[in-house]
Amino acid sequence: MESLYYLDLLGTMMFAISGSSAAADKKLDLFGLIFTGFVTAIGGGSLRDIFLNTRPVWINDGNYLLAIITGVLLFILFRKYLLRLYRTLFLFDAMGIGFFTIVGLQKSLGLESHPAAAVVLGMFSAVMGGVIRDTLMNETPLIFRKEIYATACLCGAISYLLLENLGINSLFNILISVSLVVLIRVVSMKYKLQLPHLSN
Amino acid sequence: MESLYYLDLLGTMMFAISGSSAAADKKLDLFGLIFTGFVTAIGGGSLRDIFLNTRPVWINDGNYLLAIITGVLLFILFRKYLLRLYRTLFLFDAMGIGFFTIVGLQKSLGLESHPAAAVVLGMFSAVMGGVIRDTLMNETPLIFRKEIYATACLCGAISYLLLENLGINSLFNILISVSLVVLIRVVSMKYKLQLPHLSN
Amino acid sequence: MESLYYLDLLGTMMFAISGSSAAADKKLDLFGLIFTGFVTAIGGGSLRDIFLNTRPVWINDGNYLLAIITGVLLFILFRKYLLRLYRTLFLFDAMGIGFFTIVGLQKSLGLESHPAAAVVLGMFSAVMGGVIRDTLMNETPLIFRKEIYATACLCGAISYLLLENLGINSLFNILISVSLVVLIRVVSMKYKLQLPHLSN
Repeated sequence: MESLYYLDLLGTMMFAISGSSAAADKKLDLFGLIFTGFVTAIGGGSLRDIFLNTRPVWINDGNYLLAIITGVLLFILFRKYLLRLYRTLFLFDAMGIGFFTIVGLQKSLGLESHPAAAVVLGMFSAVMGGVIRDTLMNETPLIFRKEIYATACLCGAISYLLLENLGINSLFNILISVSLVVLIRVVSMKYKLQLPHLSN
Repeated sequence: MESLYYLDLLGTMMFAISGSSAAADKKLDLFGLIFTGFVTAIGGGSLRDIFLNTRPVWINDGNYLLAIITGVLLFILFRKYLLRLYRTLFLFDAMGIGFFTIVGLQKSLGLESHPAAAVVLGMFSAVMGGVIRDTLMNETPLIFRKEIYATACLCGAISYLLLENLGINSLFNILISVSLVVLIRVVSMKYKLQLPHLSN
Repeated sequence: MESLYYLDLLGTMMFAISGSSAAADKKLDLFGLIFTGFVTAIGGGSLRDIFLNTRPVWINDGNYLLAIITGVLLFILFRKYLLRLYRTLFLFDAMGIGFFTIVGLQKSLGLESHPAAAVVLGMFSAVMGGVIRDTLMNETPLIFRKEIYATACLCGAISYLLLENLGINSLFNILISVSLVVLIRVVSMKYKLQLPHLSN
């Protein structure tokens, strides 16, 4: 599964790009950019690991910090091009949160958490970095305002659990469940679907 | 002590109701309601457990997530009636924070923390879920604005410690200390008591 | 190294003073003052310890809570004099964050984290208490707005790492690296130096 490790680093870099992009909108300085990129990239996975009472992976493996610095530098150098790639970035983000959800779910199950808690922790891995970023920036977290986002992660995690119980091959299962997350994101974006609100 | 376990689940459900009620005020969608209910319900206890370097209980025991979902559903179905029960809810909340304080204190002492730290962690168990909820909602935490609240928890925890040193029976001690929290809450509410502010 | 322990307690007390001072600006009550002093004082070190998957030191050692209470009381009693000591406080703060950075770095290295992660965790020890305080207060964290601050901690941590690899005596190294943090703080304040911002 070495390819999963590199995918994880790539995802971390992508999250760092999205984090520093938010910091640039807020006119933060270079430190703010790196800090926000860092928090967005490692926040979700670190929170999951802290709940699991295990050490976050970036503490012992320097490659994660390297991936984050690389992401922030890429953002600084190429930000004018990146902004034009809106549609591509949307797809990458959808794939990224799908992938992080499943990796987080697998890790939680491997460390013997209850399946329902593992679903929550999988979703946390994908979205809580952004929540911490928004909270630090003093904004209502995006997941409360956006079209279906965290819920897509929950669906992906539940789909993975169900298919695993049916005995489906793990890599194939990842492919299906991540695709489900992407599909829900694309459809909910295209048709502006929202979860119901309470009527008063 | 099986009844304490069910009381803990009941308290978790009550906190989930109060959390989703705050989310409804902010016009969040269904996911926001569940997420906020969840954070309010497990935030304080999880923070305590993380400080104690032990795994939060909801990670391994699915009943807590079930209690939270039930609480959010009860809120959605019966919110019009709940809002009329203001006085009852106030009493339930006071009993809930008292009970969570003592349970948190006991757990911290059992895991060999310093008694003074155990008092702080007991209070954290009761109030930090709400603090995290308010911070996510981008509001100044209620405990900074409300009449005597967290301080009531501190008093309950200190009372429990003192009575335990006097050798009083544990269940009887819980009863007295929770009652003290409720009493402080009711009196401070009725007479609009506040802690002193610094004069400039 | 017993003197380091007392320095750590002293630093904790200083942070509690700065935290309760922020709370007083916000007109919080006595509980708010103590709570904010507490969060500012133990936030950074606790976050570092949680990342390292070890128990924060104040949980088992009651002297830290005592140092915090003392700091808040000192602030309440002498706040009119303290505010005149602006220049002295600036220097104490610079020494404090320098010292906390190096202590955090040493602890992280001792618990076998990657050197780059130890640099980040050293900086976290010094600045994250303030970040949590500002976030609870619903303000954009100071480290995003101020002249060079967290970056000074990063420089101090990197300097310590380099000099340690050159085999320099540990106490002497602390002296040099803390001085570097103070120097960067003083120079960046005096000449209003800032890190670059992205131009649009």
